[in-house]
Amino acid sequence: MNQQYPSVLLEKAVNEFAKLPGIGSKTAMRLVLYLLRQDVQAVESFGYSLITLKHEVKYCSVCHNLSDTDVCSICADAQRDHTVVCVVENIQDVMAIENTRQYKGVYHVLGGVISPMDGIGPSDLQIQSLVERVARGGILEVILALSPTMEGDTTNFYIYRKLEDTGVRITVIARGVAQNDELQYTDEVTLGRSIVNRIAFRGTM
Amino acid sequence: MNQQYPSVLLEKAVNEFAKLPGIGSKTAMRLVLYLLRQDVQAVESFGYSLITLKHEVKYCSVCHNLSDTDVCSICADAQRDHTVVCVVENIQDVMAIENTRQYKGVYHVLGGVISPMDGIGPSDLQIQSLVERVARGGILEVILALSPTMEGDTTNFYIYRKLEDTGVRITVIARGVAQNDELQYTDEVTLGRSIVNRIAFRGTM
Repeated sequence: MNQQYPSVLLEKAVNEFAKLPGIGSKTAMRLVLYLLRQDVQAVESFGYSLITLKHEVKYCSVCHNLSDTDVCSICADAQRDHTVVCVVENIQDVMAIENTRQYKGVYHVLGGVISPMDGIGPSDLQIQSLVERVARGGILEVILALSPTMEGDTTNFYIYRKLEDTGVRITVIARGVAQNDELQYTDEVTLGRSIVNRIAFRGTM
Repeated sequence: MNQQYPSVLLEKAVNEFAKLPGIGSKTAMRLVLYLLRQDVQAVESFGYSLITLKHEVKYCSVCHNLSDTDVCSICADAQRDHTVVCVVENIQDVMAIENTRQYKGVYHVLGGVISPMDGIGPSDLQIQSLVERVARGGILEVILALSPTMEGDTTNFYIYRKLEDTGVRITVIARGVAQNDELQYTDEVTLGRSIVNRIAFRGTM
């Protein structure tokens, strides 16, 4: 559909929004018109927050998580257990694990998983820096917390081969039925593995 | 959920995005991280396009459509029929009608419809300016093209009462079954009205 925008400025703003993943031109138009109804301050706050973020945000020199400082707040926290490193795909995964409040170690953000289909190889990820981090010593356990997919498993295996001779303990997060899942609708790989990898029951989960 | 953002700048940008209608915090995060992966120029282009739009866009002094100039390109077009004015709710409706290529008159953008539930009365809309525009003369027909809803009908009636003594011809866009609708699924008001308001058939629609 060849849209007849009444304003070139409007068209440009809508086209910028429509470049975002999952935002079509109708949604983009709706969002731009919404912003246009807000006051100047709100629009400037929106626009500059993104520009400032792009210019000023850093990646932690230790774990490669996003950070406002050279070393992120997790890596700089002396209360955390720096002998345990949890390897994750991205920032959202760090936030998801932090939200569980079950983990007191530190992280290593790969920036993705190995995916030949998408042209992502080991050198595109923070794997070499993980190997060097482990080689520097002080780390006792590396927890692999990647997506339970073929790409995640490939990456797990690649990292395992890179670290297996270092003597560090390599673990992987448990896979099995999720809380409140109905067994009859759980896929057979997950259900089968949950039986094979059953654990001793001590009266409570 | 109390998100633990690794960066204040990131948190601010995500919160700005999440203020937009229909954008939740997870989608906002996804969009911000997408932008962060683009180069500086792309992010600046995105941010500044919105700020520039807000600062520089104008509303046409004749029809109140968005415009880059004081009088919009439609109102400034001598090829169009300035004796026919189509009254619409918003800019998207102008664009939708323009895309049909079936209309050669000009527009009047109300900026909404009368909706007591939302606290929108006639004075919040460009109704008085329509009355004045008609009073200045030169207009032969006003086409009411508002939403086929209670609010649209209320607004149609209000405008009709304001203009009925001016001698201008007042019309309303046809309501009936939409192209490719299945009759059995068409609501009874629409179907009933399509029979009452049937038109002479001349061998083709």
